[in-house]
Amino acid sequence: MADKGSASGASALSLQEGLDRIFRPKSIAVLGVTNTPETVPHDIFVNLLSSRFQGTVYPVAPRKRHIAGVRAYDYVLDIPDEVDLAVLVFPGRVCEKALEQCGEKGIKGVIIISAGFREVGEAGIAREEHVKSIVAKYGMRLIGPNCLGAINTEPDVRLNASFARAMPAAGNIAFLSQSGALCTAVLDYAQGKGIGFSKFVSLGNKADVDDVDMLRYLADDPQTSVILMYLEEIRRGRELVEVAQHITAASTNPKPILAIKGGRTAAGAAAAQSHTGSLAASDVVCDGVFEQAGIIRMMSLEEMFNTAQLLAYQPLPRTNRIAIVTNAGGPGVMATDAAIERGLELAKFSSATTAALKKALPAAANMKNPIDVIGDARDDRYVAAMEAVFNDDAVDQVLVILTPQSMTNITGIAQAVCDVHARHADKKKTLVASFMGTKDVSAGIEILQRHGVPHYILPEWAADAMEDAVQYRTWRDRKRTAVAEFTVKKDQAAAVINKAPEGYLTEVDALKVLDAYGFPLMPFELSKSADEAVAIADRIGYPVVLRIVAPKIIHKFEMKGVMLNLKSADEVRKAYTAMRDNVLKHVTAEDIHGILVRKMIPAGKEVILGVSRDHVFGHVIMFGLGGIYVEAFKDVTFRMVPISQATAGRMINNLRTSAVLRGLRGEAPSDIPAIENALQRLSLLARDFDRIAEMDINPLIVHPTGEGCHVADVRIRLENR
Amino acid sequence: MADKGSASGASALSLQEGLDRIFRPKSIAVLGVTNTPETVPHDIFVNLLSSRFQGTVYPVAPRKRHIAGVRAYDYVLDIPDEVDLAVLVFPGRVCEKALEQCGEKGIKGVIIISAGFREVGEAGIAREEHVKSIVAKYGMRLIGPNCLGAINTEPDVRLNASFARAMPAAGNIAFLSQSGALCTAVLDYAQGKGIGFSKFVSLGNKADVDDVDMLRYLADDPQTSVILMYLEEIRRGRELVEVAQHITAASTNPKPILAIKGGRTAAGAAAAQSHTGSLAASDVVCDGVFEQAGIIRMMSLEEMFNTAQLLAYQPLPRTNRIAIVTNAGGPGVMATDAAIERGLELAKFSSATTAALKKALPAAANMKNPIDVIGDARDDRYVAAMEAVFNDDAVDQVLVILTPQSMTNITGIAQAVCDVHARHADKKKTLVASFMGTKDVSAGIEILQRHGVPHYILPEWAADAMEDAVQYRTWRDRKRTAVAEFTVKKDQAAAVINKAPEGYLTEVDALKVLDAYGFPLMPFELSKSADEAVAIADRIGYPVVLRIVAPKIIHKFEMKGVMLNLKSADEVRKAYTAMRDNVLKHVTAEDIHGILVRKMIPAGKEVILGVSRDHVFGHVIMFGLGGIYVEAFKDVTFRMVPISQATAGRMINNLRTSAVLRGLRGEAPSDIPAIENALQRLSLLARDFDRIAEMDINPLIVHPTGEGCHVADVRIRLENR
Repeated sequence: MADKGSASGASALSLQEGLDRIFRPKSIAVLGVTNTPETVPHDIFVNLLSSRFQGTVYPVAPRKRHIAGVRAYDYVLDIPDEVDLAVLVFPGRVCEKALEQCGEKGIKGVIIISAGFREVGEAGIAREEHVKSIVAKYGMRLIGPNCLGAINTEPDVRLNASFARAMPAAGNIAFLSQSGALCTAVLDYAQGKGIGFSKFVSLGNKADVDDVDMLRYLADDPQTSVILMYLEEIRRGRELVEVAQHITAASTNPKPILAIKGGRTAAGAAAAQSHTGSLAASDVVCDGVFEQAGIIRMMSLEEMFNTAQLLAYQPLPRTNRIAIVTNAGGPGVMATDAAIERGLELAKFSSATTAALKKALPAAANMKNPIDVIGDARDDRYVAAMEAVFNDDAVDQVLVILTPQSMTNITGIAQAVCDVHARHADKKKTLVASFMGTKDVSAGIEILQRHGVPHYILPEWAADAMEDAVQYRTWRDRKRTAVAEFTVKKDQAAAVINKAPEGYLTEVDALKVLDAYGFPLMPFELSKSADEAVAIADRIGYPVVLRIVAPKIIHKFEMKGVMLNLKSADEVRKAYTAMRDNVLKHVTAEDIHGILVRKMIPAGKEVILGVSRDHVFGHVIMFGLGGIYVEAFKDVTFRMVPISQATAGRMINNLRTSAVLRGLRGEAPSDIPAIENALQRLSLLARDFDRIAEMDINPLIVHPTGEGCHVADVRIRLENR
Repeated sequence: MADKGSASGASALSLQEGLDRIFRPKSIAVLGVTNTPETVPHDIFVNLLSSRFQGTVYPVAPRKRHIAGVRAYDYVLDIPDEVDLAVLVFPGRVCEKALEQCGEKGIKGVIIISAGFREVGEAGIAREEHVKSIVAKYGMRLIGPNCLGAINTEPDVRLNASFARAMPAAGNIAFLSQSGALCTAVLDYAQGKGIGFSKFVSLGNKADVDDVDMLRYLADDPQTSVILMYLEEIRRGRELVEVAQHITAASTNPKPILAIKGGRTAAGAAAAQSHTGSLAASDVVCDGVFEQAGIIRMMSLEEMFNTAQLLAYQPLPRTNRIAIVTNAGGPGVMATDAAIERGLELAKFSSATTAALKKALPAAANMKNPIDVIGDARDDRYVAAMEAVFNDDAVDQVLVILTPQSMTNITGIAQAVCDVHARHADKKKTLVASFMGTKDVSAGIEILQRHGVPHYILPEWAADAMEDAVQYRTWRDRKRTAVAEFTVKKDQAAAVINKAPEGYLTEVDALKVLDAYGFPLMPFELSKSADEAVAIADRIGYPVVLRIVAPKIIHKFEMKGVMLNLKSADEVRKAYTAMRDNVLKHVTAEDIHGILVRKMIPAGKEVILGVSRDHVFGHVIMFGLGGIYVEAFKDVTFRMVPISQATAGRMINNLRTSAVLRGLRGEAPSDIPAIENALQRLSLLARDFDRIAEMDINPLIVHPTGEGCHVADVRIRLENR
């Protein structure tokens, strides 16, 4: 033991080194094991042994001679050898003491399976804080507490430090889950689908290692080529986005990330909060931010594993152009419908392809896409059809459908499908199959899976996976621009923002801030009398708008605090007096700072730009169409600040209603570059001033292309941080 | 043979009698069988024998002594006994002769499996027509040709007259498919899910018996309680709607109908056409008409069988209020998200329920909905939670989720779940389960399925099924009103419509037609000079609108043929002259019939009403919001004519954008009863005049509630029929 003393104290391991102690240990101590089968403290030890771990496992069980036939130790400090990883299954309250001893022993990797921490309330929170302090003190890395454990299928490791019933097959898919119970279901489910994993981790309470750490680790993991996540709570939002962007679009060895976010609905978020004790990020914000990060959102486990198989086993599709080969008309129709509904395109075959098909297939076959080789087809017709489409440059993805009919030699066709694919491997086309049914087709499915051809019982699922893969391709190939630094008068904005109290800026101050950041404003001035208003209007030119400036008046329109389209000095004078009289019914004269005279903005399309502070992602920027669109369709999109021009463009395109801006019914298209510009300026403003809690430009009025846009109204709310 | 002669000739069987000969025969002749295994002509005979058919089967195979050990006959006329059903597997060209002999033999039920008819082009079409004439001549009922056959699992029949590999299990779900190949896949797939069928029919080319006949037959079939359909082509659209309405909402023994319609997309429809030779109905029309018929549209086989199980095995849910019981937080969150996203509601528990849960569950459990009995739960906790929610009146549907964890006694819990359900059978609550995984949970799933508890691997699928069941419940409970007969001046409309040539009615004539049918019009008159226009305007009151009446000018606005908001005689005079001058740039003076003077319609919301003739469903009526909504969102809905007030109301509610009419941002709600009225009048007009090929009221301007609506523009196109 003496030789271990020096190892205590926080020697700094890199993330890689720390997590290697957990995922690639040479020796493991399991603390708190028992001899009672079918309990976690027993199963976890037996799982480690029976999964053929390639190192040494030491059971720590006070007052036990042996566990499952293996010599046991009273305390971890009694173990005579070096230990890389400690797995703790002691009850929560005993854990802290045991963990301290692990620290003294110089163990750097820890998994705490035990529950009884943050998720149980106050006492548990204190316990978890103590655990964190011990981990920090000794420079350990910890997974958990309150988790299922971790699995690494690498052949020279074979770690199953979990209470999952069986070690999954090896594969190139990594799975991270915040829900331990989901892990058990996923392992069982994946086994049924013949899916293998590289790493499988239940993150539990994430007291130390979290999703961000795991993503960084998996970025360089040679075993992993696709990463799946089930998340409920996101703590380090900004870092998650950064690391995900890096992983999904790295110039070498990029890896797709597929994520299910639990708590998409208010009721779901409440349920998540009740079992994790954490607040969920706003779902609509998550949607935009995941897109910004390159994370593909999945709506169910089915979709997640369907898409994961395609991405893990097949080349990433170049485009959305698919060919369908089927022995059954109905399923061909269903597959076509599903494909088109998901934005895929049926490839138009070259004349060479059509000629080849005509030569090889019977006259009654359909030679167009979807190719119907007809119910009595055997492998020779499948081969002919597949050869033709693999040789056609217009085809980038191939879906092979089979229904089990009398003449169908299912295994023969399965083998032939794999052979054609292998022969054309150099073309890097994506192949998926749907052998419809369960029992009759099972031998064929097994052949496909063995050869890495993703199989889906239903063609609709194949279409789902192909669509998601195209989405990832689009992300990888997207236009990227750096965040532009516009020339702005930061000092001028700071002069307003830094001196203002918490709460809303006055309209004049808000406009000054916008002006400093180069937003397109109509000329305006504050008037204190009707004469002054007329003088200003004469100066800036008619028509003008009058707007009351009185902080107590929030809903200016309802209080008759806005008057539009005043075309003459006379109209301005009358409007000034009428507005003042009206407003004085609601507030005192002292409440009125004056009346703003602004040149009238010509008609245009109304859009809304906003900034808010998300508790997970920090400042986020919002974009939507004005008025009825945002109200009736809730059609808004968010991104984390700062954004590039390319991102601004994608925000606009993201709206379901963006067709309105591109010009409907022969209308002139709106000035989209001007909106992109305004979005970027807003992003810089939010980035530069942390005091901005909330901000709306509602509406920004957008004119036809080349004619720009103008801010019609703005509200900025500040808070001290 | 002589005793059969009298049976030939068209004795009229009822539909029931005719189809009973096919589905409940006492004797079957199979014509064209061979001794070559793994061919349709062989397998179909062997299938009949090995499925333990409860009658006699006669092989007809010229120059064969026996088939599969059974004495064979050269011709059907050689069979010495009476025969109810003939199954023909002869090649297409031999079929006709064999069919004629079946007629002579007095056989009334026929299934033609053979292909080579309408689907192969001209020669096949002729052959099919000949087959139809033989069928008519002998008063036979025919399924096919070009089909998989038919199955009836009734124990005293046990008919497998198909080349499906295996007879499905008996159950109360009927399946009709236009695609034979899909049938083989569905049978295999359903077997994997443990789903049984009552009748299973491949309709093929539908030369005689079609979906409408089958629905009528299944309406009274005591074995069938849920009907599934895969359709590509609909021929008798109006009858389909009528029979479906009758079946799905019958006062005694109603049965849900779930349908997948192949060819939803243009590419899918093209693919369907290529293999059935038929044109698909417009998909958006189908959507509305299926809703009108009570047919629930399914988007995949997965959804269809998931929903079918719930409807077949469980009481129809009273409401959308569900309770979730889970042993895993993550899946509970996922299920909650899925449920809410599908319009289900998480029941709010009574205080008694909460108290019962608190008493029975550990402190760390979640007592709110979703109830989390926690990972180490065994059957006792599941029982406690389920007892509580079955006793809570706020709960109408229960979803039980299980993930296989160390302590989980899977089969014990499955049995307990079934027991609780049985104990509370009198409460008629809907129970579904999701034991997540594949292998570990399989024994539990088997227990659930044996007890009629629908099982879904993923909670999302359970939510899909629960949502569809609620949709069916809503349909059953919907408000129904008879088609109202308004007092209209049909003669006045007929005077215009019957004398007009093909093509568009003039605006004045179209307005006369609308006036006759009581549509709300502003006063109008046709003027031939500026003076006349002014006189009319003076008479009807200002402001007025001028509209050019010149049939060659289709796009009035673009040609400056419309001038709005003319407030004085002077303005009218000027506008008249300007309009005439403008229009004369495009047409000659003879082309101008005059200028319509109409009282200006006050501002309001624009909606579009339309009529068109669908080649499947005949006259259909369309409703959508005007302008941008219809263009940007394609948000329109259709119904078959005539419609009731309740149906008109549902059309309006169906729009995704209908919130706009209910009043957004404090706007007054639009006069929806006035729109309903206009829709009904339009429906009557279309019903009364078959010459109307197409008609648009675009826009109808709708005012706030109580203030009605006004037709702003109308086009009516006539055609001779």
